[in-house]
Amino acid sequence: MTESESAGQVPSPSADDAHLVEHRLSREALLQGRFLQVVRDTVRLPDGRESTREMVLHPGAVMVVPLVETPSGVEVVLERQYRHPVGRVMVEFPAGKLDAGESVFACAQRELREETGYAARQWARAGVLHPVIGYSDEFIEIWFARELVLGERALDAGEFLDVFTAPVAELLAWCRDGRVTDGKTLSAALFLQNLVSGAWPLDWQDADRLS
Amino acid sequence: MTESESAGQVPSPSADDAHLVEHRLSREALLQGRFLQVVRDTVRLPDGRESTREMVLHPGAVMVVPLVETPSGVEVVLERQYRHPVGRVMVEFPAGKLDAGESVFACAQRELREETGYAARQWARAGVLHPVIGYSDEFIEIWFARELVLGERALDAGEFLDVFTAPVAELLAWCRDGRVTDGKTLSAALFLQNLVSGAWPLDWQDADRLS
Repeated sequence: MTESESAGQVPSPSADDAHLVEHRLSREALLQGRFLQVVRDTVRLPDGRESTREMVLHPGAVMVVPLVETPSGVEVVLERQYRHPVGRVMVEFPAGKLDAGESVFACAQRELREETGYAARQWARAGVLHPVIGYSDEFIEIWFARELVLGERALDAGEFLDVFTAPVAELLAWCRDGRVTDGKTLSAALFLQNLVSGAWPLDWQDADRLS
Repeated sequence: MTESESAGQVPSPSADDAHLVEHRLSREALLQGRFLQVVRDTVRLPDGRESTREMVLHPGAVMVVPLVETPSGVEVVLERQYRHPVGRVMVEFPAGKLDAGESVFACAQRELREETGYAARQWARAGVLHPVIGYSDEFIEIWFARELVLGERALDAGEFLDVFTAPVAELLAWCRDGRVTDGKTLSAALFLQNLVSGAWPLDWQDADRLS
């Protein structure tokens, strides 16, 4: 292993990664909770020794960045939701877990509609993020939505949240000053800032072509 | 609860959040693994009913964005590390968990030194993120470091990673094209892009004044 490598090296996973990669030898179920499923894998390390890795199994999720065009610029639809694990009300983009067998796009449409009441005529995929690579296999697909039409919310039982809109500049100010600390929302703000500046345009598609 | 609120509302947690906040009634240990600790809390919902919330307990972590000034612009020190939960080599900023009783700044210095070999003469705190608000109390402090001096790495047992540097523009291109999907690194890229543009300057302090 090199101590430090030259600038600009492409970090492609297809490079020779044998000195980094671990191989799973076995899996043991540790917890089947009502909500969380945890396993312990035994892995072979790059140096040939064995170790264990504990992790949450997660079905994956989708986050939606809903855009509202106004005469004074682009606004985004956000939520305020109490999150028990961190003990506070968080400002975040709508998001939710994939149901069994559900497509990513169907989940994006469903979560937007259930949590905010909005349907969107146009959609664009921005990417994917892995929120917690140390102990969960969760991924969050990042989708943008525009041309919104307001309908009826349909929150899950036990789900309580406020929906509001804010100018993009205001959201970015909240990211900077610490009023937004949700990791997925900070990540989405990177794509949002670069979309609005024109640096990272998206490939918009009509909803009926994606369904 | 209002269906949708007016634009620009300040999402301050100090507003009247009684319609959102849950109160913990009891806690039950579900799992004490070698690495993961999981609990199930019983909570009172805003509507008075009871529900349960399962979550990972985490000591908190620090991420470091190490800057290297070069004649052609700012570069960052990054790592390539295999992450078993997501089954791939990830490009990410150095980060690590707080040891018991350790200060955030001491952890930042230690993780940078252990994983990359670098010490930094100047440091600035950019903020904090919550990577997984649905099922963990983890927070990640976001610190920037500059005026780096290379010393000796000292990886933990069973830790294998490559260290390299890349221009900021290259890192941002990897965020856009999906070669970087680590949530904490995407969040840090938001602060980094705005630092480099001059939009979000940081309050730099000498290491010896922070220790």
